Amino acid sequence: MNERKLSLLMDFYELTMANGYFKDGKHHQIAVFDVFFRSIPDQGGYAIFAGLEQVIDYINALSFDDDEIAYLRSKNVFDEAFLEYLRHFKFTSDVYAMKEGTPIFPHEPILVVKGPIIECQLIETMILLTINHQSLIATKAARIVYAAQGRAVLEFGARRAHGYDASIFGARAAYISGAIGSSNTYVDFMYQIPAIGTMAHSYIQSYPSEYEAFAAYARTYPTNTVLLVDTYNTLKEGIPNAIKIHKNILEPMGCRLKGIRLDSGDLTYLTKEARKMLNQAGLADVKITVSNSLDEYLIKELLHQGAQIDAFGVGERLVTARSEAVFGGVFKLAAVEEKGELVPKIKISENVQKTTTPGFKQVFRFYDPSGMAEADVITLFDEVINENEPYHLFDPNFPWKSKVIEEYKAVPLLVPIFIQGKQVYDVPALTEVRAYAKEQHNRLWPEVLRLENPHEYYVDLSQALWDLKQEMIKHYKK
Amino acid sequence: MNERKLSLLMDFYELTMANGYFKDGKHHQIAVFDVFFRSIPDQGGYAIFAGLEQVIDYINALSFDDDEIAYLRSKNVFDEAFLEYLRHFKFTSDVYAMKEGTPIFPHEPILVVKGPIIECQLIETMILLTINHQSLIATKAARIVYAAQGRAVLEFGARRAHGYDASIFGARAAYISGAIGSSNTYVDFMYQIPAIGTMAHSYIQSYPSEYEAFAAYARTYPTNTVLLVDTYNTLKEGIPNAIKIHKNILEPMGCRLKGIRLDSGDLTYLTKEARKMLNQAGLADVKITVSNSLDEYLIKELLHQGAQIDAFGVGERLVTARSEAVFGGVFKLAAVEEKGELVPKIKISENVQKTTTPGFKQVFRFYDPSGMAEADVITLFDEVINENEPYHLFDPNFPWKSKVIEEYKAVPLLVPIFIQGKQVYDVPALTEVRAYAKEQHNRLWPEVLRLENPHEYYVDLSQALWDLKQEMIKHYKK
Repeated sequence: MNERKLSLLMDFYELTMANGYFKDGKHHQIAVFDVFFRSIPDQGGYAIFAGLEQVIDYINALSFDDDEIAYLRSKNVFDEAFLEYLRHFKFTSDVYAMKEGTPIFPHEPILVVKGPIIECQLIETMILLTINHQSLIATKAARIVYAAQGRAVLEFGARRAHGYDASIFGARAAYISGAIGSSNTYVDFMYQIPAIGTMAHSYIQSYPSEYEAFAAYARTYPTNTVLLVDTYNTLKEGIPNAIKIHKNILEPMGCRLKGIRLDSGDLTYLTKEARKMLNQAGLADVKITVSNSLDEYLIKELLHQGAQIDAFGVGERLVTARSEAVFGGVFKLAAVEEKGELVPKIKISENVQKTTTPGFKQVFRFYDPSGMAEADVITLFDEVINENEPYHLFDPNFPWKSKVIEEYKAVPLLVPIFIQGKQVYDVPALTEVRAYAKEQHNRLWPEVLRLENPHEYYVDLSQALWDLKQEMIKHYKK
Repeated sequence: MNERKLSLLMDFYELTMANGYFKDGKHHQIAVFDVFFRSIPDQGGYAIFAGLEQVIDYINALSFDDDEIAYLRSKNVFDEAFLEYLRHFKFTSDVYAMKEGTPIFPHEPILVVKGPIIECQLIETMILLTINHQSLIATKAARIVYAAQGRAVLEFGARRAHGYDASIFGARAAYISGAIGSSNTYVDFMYQIPAIGTMAHSYIQSYPSEYEAFAAYARTYPTNTVLLVDTYNTLKEGIPNAIKIHKNILEPMGCRLKGIRLDSGDLTYLTKEARKMLNQAGLADVKITVSNSLDEYLIKELLHQGAQIDAFGVGERLVTARSEAVFGGVFKLAAVEEKGELVPKIKISENVQKTTTPGFKQVFRFYDPSGMAEADVITLFDEVINENEPYHLFDPNFPWKSKVIEEYKAVPLLVPIFIQGKQVYDVPALTEVRAYAKEQHNRLWPEVLRLENPHEYYVDLSQALWDLKQEMIKHYKK
């Protein structure tokens, strides 16, 4: 994280609670916390898990230096013994998480922390912040890439992002979900996410004429000439000038015009006309990129109307996830160790959907023989699924909706990241994460992937976990 | 910025354009760029300018080190001479800006850069990113603080922010607009924005009973006991337990219960009942804080229904500006020096609202004798307004809508920040910015401040600027 010291980036209540646990002598008590979310943004059929690498970096760097301790002391609410504990803070917990790029669904644990309750509490805010942000953007990007139906999607949102990290990690999340690059040079420098860009309107305007601006650009970048054609009049000047540049400057140099970009106007009409004009000029290979407040809905509409587009530059509506700017991941207590045994905890709510699922848990993804994802099943952590035996899937809210499957693969999704504070997970390269995300995405049925009214993917409970939950609800109701 | 090196956080096209200017030998050409925005989020009547301090920090730190140069060289598109220029980069431009906390309106320049075109281009992305983000959140926070009608607003959004900076600078922007503090400890440590927080549901759940959790907390923090009362049953358990804690633990220690917090349920009904129960127990001084996906609309509705609330904890909908997560500030060329003279530039659009206002400009805010803001007037930069003479205000789109004012104060809003690359502006303390924002906010008429259907504040052009713009439009049309 570019050597930033963000250990105090936590909700103040994490510290007041931690100090309370410490004072009460219960800070060593083992607890299990689940990260999960309750609803998919944009009423989509799936979300994409992202941000794990930054969670790992954060945990590995977590420590409290003299300045931070001095600041905390100045608040006059923390015990010296607690500050001493922080001074020598050492992370000792277990963390399990899904791999980045995994499609995720409501109510299933996507990251689990098991360890001294004081540690769980101290890392809560940063885990949620990191996962909520990157999963939000990865999910939005997946929708946009899906809408583009194989055409390139470029992340162009730096200037409208919510701060520097939002631009940087937003670009990272978009790349995981299939964007082919970003306008942000920093993410190319730091994360090898290809940086993309050519010129702004101001470049054109700074020359006496559009033609002269194009000519200057083509001479400077003859092998990568992409011209912004809408500064003055797209059809009467911009595209004719671009074609002239090809004939007068690039062709004599043995080069070809690479592309044009349109950033305003009626993109369907203009790209159709542009395509015709370019083709008539023998430039059928010249790519057309469009931008201008695009998102999955506008992209779908453009393609539906037959717009002639090779690449979409997607800015503010991707990097801010404007249509739903909140990913609602929460961090909830699932179990507490008492007398050496993990005791499941439940939070009951009037709202059935808000009642938590108790206990230390695992999630299995069931694939059918063709490799398609059929359902996720949340189980107790140490449940074993024997793939040679039929498995009984049932809806946890309507248990009579059930079926028995015979042939399947059941893959545990939560993998160990830290064990007793030690990182045991090899962080994959970003390109690997991206490939995994694509592969997993392709294992979802089209009915789950579609943008509107998707099929609700099954997230079931194992019989043992369902029994435990029902028993605890009954016990509470008494 | 905690010593981060963010010089490459810029759209790649800034670099390709800069290299182009350099190669063309026109990088020294003086240009003027305006930052402005076109519409106010949430159809509000005003926005709040924020982020200037971070823009200044960024410009002062802008430099390109060996690693960054090596990276750029590896792209094989930049000239060695250009890389050498970057290696010795020195900022030499002038920057003018409004003060942070100033109410701002569409189409007026809020920040102006005048200097070598290559410098303007290189700083574009970070200026927009910084200003767009913080102005977005400051604007949203101002609406929320306005809706709370004097009750405290606490920024609680860290876990749902778009990355670390969004939490940090979002809290800063919210504080400027009147939030009294933040949940994020880091902003207290770094910016002295008061950190606030007590406990989460998990704290309560980790004890055998709610009463025991409350008791442990009260013993640890007897002078600052704020209890979260909705983990199990707010009216039957939470509040009665809080009252018992006061009587059994705090009173005997000579302390008083400070507050309760509610994070779920029907907040109007529950706070009315809570207020009654507390008052009957002699705890009329105990404050009631509520949270749970609040924003200005919900706060207005709660208060309209007579909810009994002293403080609002506002999380995700503030820190993400969920109702409109994009602040659309743009960076547009306004003039270019040719033969030693600034030549105004205009970008014409079919859409009248998108046609830019040409030239190097100043903005004056006109106050009436009571000190209320009456209109902003955009002028040529060196126009002088003689307050002893009547001034003719007119609507730039409908010039027959006009009036002559006799008594007024006209205050220039764009103040020098950098002159020839040297910072000339003393950055005020954050508390000063906050006080200035409040003072300026109070000079807006209630008709401009209201949340829905506000009066459109006048942003006029001076006669000289209007004439220039019309002349250029006519010239272009020929």
